[in-house]
Amino acid sequence: MTKVCILRLGHRPFRDKRVTTHVGLAARAFGADGMYLAASDPGIVESLRDVAVRWGGEFFIEDGISWKRCVREWKKKGGTVVHLTMYGLPLKEVIGEIREKEEILVVAGAEKVPGEIYGLADYNISVTSQPHSEVSGVAVFLDHLFEGKELDRTYPDAELQIVPSRDGKRTVP
Amino acid sequence: MTKVCILRLGHRPFRDKRVTTHVGLAARAFGADGMYLAASDPGIVESLRDVAVRWGGEFFIEDGISWKRCVREWKKKGGTVVHLTMYGLPLKEVIGEIREKEEILVVAGAEKVPGEIYGLADYNISVTSQPHSEVSGVAVFLDHLFEGKELDRTYPDAELQIVPSRDGKRTVP
Repeated sequence: MTKVCILRLGHRPFRDKRVTTHVGLAARAFGADGMYLAASDPGIVESLRDVAVRWGGEFFIEDGISWKRCVREWKKKGGTVVHLTMYGLPLKEVIGEIREKEEILVVAGAEKVPGEIYGLADYNISVTSQPHSEVSGVAVFLDHLFEGKELDRTYPDAELQIVPSRDGKRTVP
Repeated sequence: MTKVCILRLGHRPFRDKRVTTHVGLAARAFGADGMYLAASDPGIVESLRDVAVRWGGEFFIEDGISWKRCVREWKKKGGTVVHLTMYGLPLKEVIGEIREKEEILVVAGAEKVPGEIYGLADYNISVTSQPHSEVSGVAVFLDHLFEGKELDRTYPDAELQIVPSRDGKRTVP
């Protein structure tokens, strides 16, 4: 299966705490392998690691990452860099081509991203050409990449699992 | 076309400002008609209305809504209420049935929602049975509901439109 990691840019520790946490949770839930955070924020690292332990799987999170080094190293080892931006090419036009790649780094910015990323990325891709959110951008990108198969994923090593229910909350064990 | 509105529950004015704004932006970008906010927050209303004016379309936002009255009135006029919760039935199992409905109210909670909503909703639906975000929940739900067609939507009345680009930022006019 394709290896996919998220690189979260432009995180400002206080202001973006919840949105970046949501980006990480969505990345994990929709099938990414992990997230690099181009800022230091031990609180986010702890809360995402805690989710990964309780809910299972191998999702990793690393903070204090230099975004430029991360992008360069990813490309040097032959990986593909996809920058999500509302200015990019429509998702549906390029997702088939991207689906053939083996290692994908998905760059998800905040309101401002360094202009250089447009040139460094292999693909600049728009998930709609409208303003919305890095959380929905990452989720919908991954859902199209994996063609919805990630929605059925289960985590056998989870401490806690949900039993889908018509009208209540059921978990095991 | 199906009419879809979002009902945002559990918004706490300071703490959830950005996440709720992102829910509203994602709702608009992925094809919802508007959002009811079960709290008062004029700042969010203003910023979402401003986006709708600049980027086009008819997306509405109303704050200060009683969630229970909103749900009851929606059901009274024959509409369908879909509550997004990780405890619900898998999206893919029920989306075909929901796609046949004419008016859908999508209830998107925050961390805590009133337990009553599970019983009041016509459907409790999970977009993965994993914790992630109301932003990604709303976006992926709408993307499946509209089968990705909303990704191609354009807004002829927009003040500002993006021209998709391989490696830069282009807008018209």
